[in-house]
Amino acid sequence: MSPADVETRATREDHEALRLWLRLLATTNLIEERMRRRLQEEHATTLPRFDLMAQLDRAPEGLKMGELSRRMMVTGGNVTGITDGLEAEGLVARLADPVDRRALRVRLTPAGRRAFRLMAAAHESWIVQAFAGLDRTQTGALADLLGRLKQHVRATEA
Amino acid sequence: MSPADVETRATREDHEALRLWLRLLATTNLIEERMRRRLQEEHATTLPRFDLMAQLDRAPEGLKMGELSRRMMVTGGNVTGITDGLEAEGLVARLADPVDRRALRVRLTPAGRRAFRLMAAAHESWIVQAFAGLDRTQTGALADLLGRLKQHVRATEA
Repeated sequence: MSPADVETRATREDHEALRLWLRLLATTNLIEERMRRRLQEEHATTLPRFDLMAQLDRAPEGLKMGELSRRMMVTGGNVTGITDGLEAEGLVARLADPVDRRALRVRLTPAGRRAFRLMAAAHESWIVQAFAGLDRTQTGALADLLGRLKQHVRATEA
Repeated sequence: MSPADVETRATREDHEALRLWLRLLATTNLIEERMRRRLQEEHATTLPRFDLMAQLDRAPEGLKMGELSRRMMVTGGNVTGITDGLEAEGLVARLADPVDRRALRVRLTPAGRRAFRLMAAAHESWIVQAFAGLDRTQTGALADLLGRLKQHVRATEA
């Protein structure tokens, strides 16, 4: 292959990677934005609040604030501020950590857990709808390709 | 198929869609976070600043503030604040709109365009690296699957 060919191919590939990244970002943003709107319209809540409650739902022992921040999946929320709001509504509680008594753990209250489970069911059914445009083979292929991509990005940072 | 079978399948599918959504979100977040870090370390800039300059680079006539906000791909930035900062550094300029004289358009200055092109080249080569874990067939398949997903989500909202 002549140098000119290599250059042509490289340029094509560069644009392809960039286009693919923009499509990945746009798809994620689109689904996230629809989720934000639905949570607002149907549950009068925000995605960061929902995300924070989801992290607590998976941690029955509760989480320290630092852990909670690290586990959040979405950006745009101030973890302390959201926790304050949910605590004022009786949906989460701050409790002393049994080991490190100077640290506080945040936990869902029973009312918080009930409220979260209702929202989570609605959220899950909407996600199922969103992905219903792909059949089982396509779903599996997408999961596999994203898994490879993630693994490669992680490996190249080591 | 008995009702029990349908229910089993539905439950399996639900979890699959939810897992796939979380993987999509996690992959996007991972790449975005690495981009944020690189832009910070190598160009002392932020992703929202880069994104804003990218939108202006594609619009030689400049953009009104409202248009600029709508075109931003990443969240977490205040468009007015970022524009103020870039203007203070001489990288963008606000000019009266030739049609609607009460409106302002934002444009890259020649220095802003040069600075952006340098960052964009580094950014593109990093994106190429990130996606190099997929071969051409896989890249094409991922683009196709994301395209279907996006189209389906858009269609279900109509």
